[in-house]
Amino acid sequence: MKRIILATVAILLATSGVWAQQNRPQNANAQQFARMMRNVSRVETKTIHSKILNADREYCIYLPAGYDNNPDRSYPILYLLHGMDGTNTSWFELGHLKDIMDQLRSAGEVCDMIVVSPNAGGKIQEGYWNGYFDMEGWAYERFFYEEFLPTIEKEYRVKADKAHRAVAGLSMGGGGCTAYAQRHSDMYCACYAMSALMHLPAPQANPKEKTKMWYLTEAANRYSCVEFVQNADDATKQALLTVAWYVDCGDDDFLFDCNIDFIKAMRKANIPYQLRIRDGVHNWEYWRTALYSALPFVSRNFGK
Amino acid sequence: MKRIILATVAILLATSGVWAQQNRPQNANAQQFARMMRNVSRVETKTIHSKILNADREYCIYLPAGYDNNPDRSYPILYLLHGMDGTNTSWFELGHLKDIMDQLRSAGEVCDMIVVSPNAGGKIQEGYWNGYFDMEGWAYERFFYEEFLPTIEKEYRVKADKAHRAVAGLSMGGGGCTAYAQRHSDMYCACYAMSALMHLPAPQANPKEKTKMWYLTEAANRYSCVEFVQNADDATKQALLTVAWYVDCGDDDFLFDCNIDFIKAMRKANIPYQLRIRDGVHNWEYWRTALYSALPFVSRNFGK
Amino acid sequence: MKRIILATVAILLATSGVWAQQNRPQNANAQQFARMMRNVSRVETKTIHSKILNADREYCIYLPAGYDNNPDRSYPILYLLHGMDGTNTSWFELGHLKDIMDQLRSAGEVCDMIVVSPNAGGKIQEGYWNGYFDMEGWAYERFFYEEFLPTIEKEYRVKADKAHRAVAGLSMGGGGCTAYAQRHSDMYCACYAMSALMHLPAPQANPKEKTKMWYLTEAANRYSCVEFVQNADDATKQALLTVAWYVDCGDDDFLFDCNIDFIKAMRKANIPYQLRIRDGVHNWEYWRTALYSALPFVSRNFGK
Amino acid sequence: MKRIILATVAILLATSGVWAQQNRPQNANAQQFARMMRNVSRVETKTIHSKILNADREYCIYLPAGYDNNPDRSYPILYLLHGMDGTNTSWFELGHLKDIMDQLRSAGEVCDMIVVSPNAGGKIQEGYWNGYFDMEGWAYERFFYEEFLPTIEKEYRVKADKAHRAVAGLSMGGGGCTAYAQRHSDMYCACYAMSALMHLPAPQANPKEKTKMWYLTEAANRYSCVEFVQNADDATKQALLTVAWYVDCGDDDFLFDCNIDFIKAMRKANIPYQLRIRDGVHNWEYWRTALYSALPFVSRNFGK
Repeated sequence: MKRIILATVAILLATSGVWAQQNRPQNANAQQFARMMRNVSRVETKTIHSKILNADREYCIYLPAGYDNNPDRSYPILYLLHGMDGTNTSWFELGHLKDIMDQLRSAGEVCDMIVVSPNAGGKIQEGYWNGYFDMEGWAYERFFYEEFLPTIEKEYRVKADKAHRAVAGLSMGGGGCTAYAQRHSDMYCACYAMSALMHLPAPQANPKEKTKMWYLTEAANRYSCVEFVQNADDATKQALLTVAWYVDCGDDDFLFDCNIDFIKAMRKANIPYQLRIRDGVHNWEYWRTALYSALPFVSRNFGK
Repeated sequence: MKRIILATVAILLATSGVWAQQNRPQNANAQQFARMMRNVSRVETKTIHSKILNADREYCIYLPAGYDNNPDRSYPILYLLHGMDGTNTSWFELGHLKDIMDQLRSAGEVCDMIVVSPNAGGKIQEGYWNGYFDMEGWAYERFFYEEFLPTIEKEYRVKADKAHRAVAGLSMGGGGCTAYAQRHSDMYCACYAMSALMHLPAPQANPKEKTKMWYLTEAANRYSCVEFVQNADDATKQALLTVAWYVDCGDDDFLFDCNIDFIKAMRKANIPYQLRIRDGVHNWEYWRTALYSALPFVSRNFGK
Repeated sequence: MKRIILATVAILLATSGVWAQQNRPQNANAQQFARMMRNVSRVETKTIHSKILNADREYCIYLPAGYDNNPDRSYPILYLLHGMDGTNTSWFELGHLKDIMDQLRSAGEVCDMIVVSPNAGGKIQEGYWNGYFDMEGWAYERFFYEEFLPTIEKEYRVKADKAHRAVAGLSMGGGGCTAYAQRHSDMYCACYAMSALMHLPAPQANPKEKTKMWYLTEAANRYSCVEFVQNADDATKQALLTVAWYVDCGDDDFLFDCNIDFIKAMRKANIPYQLRIRDGVHNWEYWRTALYSALPFVSRNFGK
Repeated sequence: MKRIILATVAILLATSGVWAQQNRPQNANAQQFARMMRNVSRVETKTIHSKILNADREYCIYLPAGYDNNPDRSYPILYLLHGMDGTNTSWFELGHLKDIMDQLRSAGEVCDMIVVSPNAGGKIQEGYWNGYFDMEGWAYERFFYEEFLPTIEKEYRVKADKAHRAVAGLSMGGGGCTAYAQRHSDMYCACYAMSALMHLPAPQANPKEKTKMWYLTEAANRYSCVEFVQNADDATKQALLTVAWYVDCGDDDFLFDCNIDFIKAMRKANIPYQLRIRDGVHNWEYWRTALYSALPFVSRNFGK
């Protein structure tokens, strides 16, 4: 009976992650421990040097269980974009991505996939550049398509085709993922936009000083997701039909209106979409719970 | 149009909490700001000195929006218990209690209520006492009922009766809340147990040294929630019928079996209960999502 | 052991409703059986004669468990409106209202309430009048407020005040319930509109022949729920603030646009609402699943 | 504007299915209409003659949209079993299978699949045989595997292998599907049991008269799903690991206990499963809502 109690207590400790760290040396040598670890999913934080941005850029990447043990297997990939106040760590620290992925994988609701979140900037109010588009002095979209994505798909075993690549994001990253999937519809099979900044009005035409916020506003206006659909010609509409679209926005979100504008444009253009309006505002409770539908959605669309 | 952009950007910043801190001095004097703040919910961390435990004990408390502005109004209260590895801050930092309460309140799914989480101990593997029951050297249950609860219900405007008092908890706190509601059924109208440690086998009868873990195990065995129901006489069963019971446990939780044992005892004793088995394990994703049913459940049972 | 099998089989049969009918005479005399039945909920179909419509009108009414056993108790009431193709039986036969009410009541998610569904017409394409508004030759709204509602609230033990009266409906009945709650905001505490026909463009000004469909279209245009909000003066807006509004519409519903128009008007008028867009079209799967949120919603708003 | 109204009204009528029947002759000749129909899903009720049972047996079959238009395409198949009081029509009339399949397909939550429901008997209390197992005088399991399944998979374009065949059912059919997947684990990739009759105690050893109910009870005891797992040898356990198992049962279902017994056996045998306990009893509300998880579950497991 003592064994049962000890076992229960051991599991209690183990579940909190304490066990793994404390008991490693006694229970397994480094090699054994490393082997064991390779059977579970993990998150890495890495840095890539960008010539285009002339800076080091961090990213976080989720690798599914078994990634190291199956050196010949390649995986679908989801690019997951943060919002204006976030960085590459946001989806992992505030969105609890790893726990949710592991649970959905265990239940069979998602396939094995890689999820990567790049850092699109620091807090703009602290003087950093921010945004997913090309601006004067911050050619982020060029960085993304010429440096970041190719590096990721070379460094990791990624099924590097449209049928196995998806993009999702929240707020500024919701507009970012939609604009990326609109203008690179040959690259993504699915796009999931949460509480998305789908467009912004044009900023003042000739300000005394062009701040970083001015440039961000100008880019968000230039790449309006709403106008893109409104202005799409037939060939563009045909291209948009090859992507699975999902829009998810809270009924009390302050960006509600521009999401509806986007949906109205899609309806008028006869492009199918999924739309969900759930209870909520522009916060992490909304985005974290959105993962429970976003991850199965992109998973279902892989390989079709 | 510039105003629209500025407004949008202002809201973007505000949603991240930045605005409130940065712009306070310009927009409002301290008094005005304080008044404004009283209309939103808030969380306080306070300390109470326990003579019984001969120590200072922290707690965190959620006060609903309008608490300060309505000095004549009193509120129902939920005692929310953490698990073996947690403290008074766990439900607020890892469980995101404030965001979820605010959202459910806004949607009308919960009434205005106070939620308080006491600290039942530090990490036992670091040498601290832990647990909700009375043990030699750690009379926590006496502290809870003679010092903590009376102080809270005196210091705050609480509707201090059974019809407006509920208890909930996770893991060790799930066993704790169930045992509290069983043995103090005249005090609580509702009990919501998540991934609960409903019983433990007895520890070794005469160990060389009685560790804190030995005492915790002995107490959890002594206050087995399963045996309490199995051994209940008719008067006790009548008392149990006055509490609304809810059991919520993951299908892959390592404590699954003892939750089922509890349910089997309840069925045999003809005591109604709600049971939900959802997808999941023993982790914060489960407990955080449980709040979306736990808080409405206790709210519905207040004042009946 | 044989008893266990027989018991199991008996329950198997009972669950299908067969038992109750087959075994009544053997197990209970008529009086005992009647007493037993009064402890469960039931649905009655009755007829009321309308002088205004110069016709008999049917309705179906759900009475909660215990209604007959508690002759001094009165209940909140929900008026539940059918769509253009429906009648008073639709919510009960196709919407499974009784099973869903019983389940939600058993789980404590709704309070004891009466639900009544009047017959607003037959199939218009078969030559019957249809609609919830006053038209030339079909003064249904007068019937509803001068004959139907007063009769129901006299014949049954209803808490006949705004705080305990709600209205809900689907499609044409979704527009109907919204228009009723708009123009009789002193009578309802809550309104839940599903896939609602919130407005219709005006029909041809001077048709050769004014068909029943012409009159229905004209009334739906005259009582546009969207224009009502757009044109509301301050006093009307104040009145609208006293009702809890809920709009629920499928992302592929053909009436999606007019629901969004309604929401936009509500946002502009600063009137709070709940909005949910779920997966689905204009069919009974949507409305039946809507009951799981509609019934708790009106229940939570009773007695506030 | 008249056109808009007419269009709206036309759609209103169309949604009720009236339009399709009324307007066919005017709008399309028979061939055109037939072509149009082939793009939507449909349900057929057919009859198969069984030599084994010496009787005609009905079945209902759901064919996905596009079935007729893609004569070279074959589909995965789900065998969906009714309960003791049901027949082949139950899942379609009471379970609304077609509407739910169409909606989930439209949202991408299920793949194109065929769903077929055989008739396992009439009401036993009316003198009919009933049950999915072989009994003296009712060799239903032989009929199912030697006549029914081979005929279906010959008559329709079915992907006739384990990777594309699943089985599900409710109550007696929940026990039936589990027993089928246990003893034919080489034939099914997934099994979803709802409110399942997982075992029955043995009937009286030597009754005066062996009724049809006696035979049914004896067969359900002989093929106990619980004992099958408890008695499984290593090879059998290995075979069980090749099926994805899902158990779904209401917290107030009178068959709750035998579902828990089944889960306990599975845990002890280390065979993974999904378990959900939701709010509800043994009725069609439970089974209908179960389809929203059952159909995606089997769909996700096809082709793995």
